Amino acid sequence: MSQEQDTRTAIMEATYRALCTHGYADLTMQDIADETDKSKAALHYHFDGKDDLFREFLAYLHEGFAAEIADHPDGTPVERLVALVRRVLEPVDDEADQQFNTAFMEIKAQAPYRDGYREVLRRFDADLHAEVAGLVAEAVEAGQYDADTDPDEIAEHVLTYIHGTWTRAAAIGADVVTMREHLVQDILDLLVDGAEVPVSADTTDAPAVDSARDGVDDEEVTP
Amino acid sequence: MSQEQDTRTAIMEATYRALCTHGYADLTMQDIADETDKSKAALHYHFDGKDDLFREFLAYLHEGFAAEIADHPDGTPVERLVALVRRVLEPVDDEADQQFNTAFMEIKAQAPYRDGYREVLRRFDADLHAEVAGLVAEAVEAGQYDADTDPDEIAEHVLTYIHGTWTRAAAIGADVVTMREHLVQDILDLLVDGAEVPVSADTTDAPAVDSARDGVDDEEVTP
Repeated sequence: MSQEQDTRTAIMEATYRALCTHGYADLTMQDIADETDKSKAALHYHFDGKDDLFREFLAYLHEGFAAEIADHPDGTPVERLVALVRRVLEPVDDEADQQFNTAFMEIKAQAPYRDGYREVLRRFDADLHAEVAGLVAEAVEAGQYDADTDPDEIAEHVLTYIHGTWTRAAAIGADVVTMREHLVQDILDLLVDGAEVPVSADTTDAPAVDSARDGVDDEEVTP
Repeated sequence: MSQEQDTRTAIMEATYRALCTHGYADLTMQDIADETDKSKAALHYHFDGKDDLFREFLAYLHEGFAAEIADHPDGTPVERLVALVRRVLEPVDDEADQQFNTAFMEIKAQAPYRDGYREVLRRFDADLHAEVAGLVAEAVEAGQYDADTDPDEIAEHVLTYIHGTWTRAAAIGADVVTMREHLVQDILDLLVDGAEVPVSADTTDAPAVDSARDGVDDEEVTP
């Protein structure tokens, strides 16, 4: 059972590497097998095919994503919300990571055609929505935001904007940090008069964010 | 010369239909030829291959898009801005149109890998940016928006949000009208106190918008 689990984890990690190299559209089971010490036949023992493997891969990414977004730094609700947005919209310097983000967008584009993809992608959205709405509700509770602020509405806004940021980054190479800091400004503009948040206006990444991005697990924050 | 132009237009229209049926990833030159009265060899006479054909297809879509977004209804600058956003983010009922929008997203995801795609996609963005920023500047001039409103900043915000709306619609089937009306509300929230705009709060489409969507040309508003 544990060995079966190890094999699956190894296949998921191989899929990540293969995606970074080949993108999604052209990726074959052979490409994934080439990133493991297993044969393509062995892969087919575990998965019916590319779609089946990718449903599990998305679930694997989702697990990392859910853990990642729930792991807040200390601070007021609005500080934690800003930190969350900066973490989810962290620019990637590494070419492999950029290719992963682009591949993830290909997967989103394929979602209407592939059974089960949308269901997992909805879980990314639902978790991020819950996290953002929860922080907004806490901000209202703490008096940082007006009592009539609607947490669900703000969360939907933030989610749509986050998707747009990744799409524009991939499609036209638009700068992630510039777009992200506009969103951070929107979040700060909601503060009631007089409420102050010690959020750096610096558009480079806060150290706490950078340190969270040093491995495959941490790449999983892309929704 | 005119016949050459007719042939190219026929190929572009065939590409549109083939995209709606097959999506982008699996689309072959044969699929496009099947939508014309020409052979695949004849297609190769005009285009070096799928990438070359798609660069021209994107330019063809861009032409329609540029004309479409520049064609404003009457009204105050903010009314025209709201109408523009509603037109660009018009939900599609038709299955073929939905498939086209998804295919367009696949193309955006492929942009980093294909020579020349990004350049055309940047023109969609630049034109929409200029149009939105121009209307915001007019709104400032007309006293609808505060003098310190930054047209470029608002335009960037609107563009990112529009991309996010299409991406979430494709990835998780999120409702376009709900997301769009949040953006409309953002645009109205910028109005200076006392300024009023007779914009319907109705979340169904205004008739002027619906009537603009009855042919291939009108589908080209998707950025």
